[in-house]
Amino acid sequence: MKVIHYSEAETKVFDTEPAKGVTGRVVIGKADGAANFCMRVFELSPEGHTPKHSHAWEHEIFVHAGTGAVWRNEQWIEISQGNVIYIPGNEEHQLKNTGASPLTFVCLIPSGVAEL
Amino acid sequence: MKVIHYSEAETKVFDTEPAKGVTGRVVIGKADGAANFCMRVFELSPEGHTPKHSHAWEHEIFVHAGTGAVWRNEQWIEISQGNVIYIPGNEEHQLKNTGASPLTFVCLIPSGVAEL
Repeated sequence: MKVIHYSEAETKVFDTEPAKGVTGRVVIGKADGAANFCMRVFELSPEGHTPKHSHAWEHEIFVHAGTGAVWRNEQWIEISQGNVIYIPGNEEHQLKNTGASPLTFVCLIPSGVAEL
Repeated sequence: MKVIHYSEAETKVFDTEPAKGVTGRVVIGKADGAANFCMRVFELSPEGHTPKHSHAWEHEIFVHAGTGAVWRNEQWIEISQGNVIYIPGNEEHQLKNTGASPLTFVCLIPSGVAEL
């Protein structure tokens, strides 16, 4: 059993468009023996955003802290701590921070694709 | 795309030993078309706990709020918000609330087993 604080995991920073102000961490993945799905934690700085894109695999997201919005069907939906987002495969999506503190969310993906 | 607050999902209460003070919710599952893994959110009331048990499938857990402990190798490990726990299949585990407010955590399981 692995017990860490998410902030202990190695970071990967995405700060070149189409991403901005994104810090990602793989907190549970193949290196831990997790064969079925992978947990990542992302922190978006104020005004930060993920790319607007789509891909074949799904996302299961839980918003831990902060305020932001998710792009769904050509409009922004407000999100904050406690929100849950299910993004099916092949659906266009983007997340952005609309607040003054980091937007922190957990994002899980199935195995078989790049972990981060 | 589904966007909800976790508190909107239907609850299932476990308050008979070996569980106590546990409220569970399936927030992303088969009903949403999630074919690979399932997201649940659990709230443990003060002094609440999950069963001490093991099973073949893994857990990927993120602690959203509160303070508690997880049973690992015959001892309690303190946990609080931001902790990540990976419990491999067939490893004995239990979570308990040691604080005065709810212990809230996200717990994911692979598809193919009961969602809650």
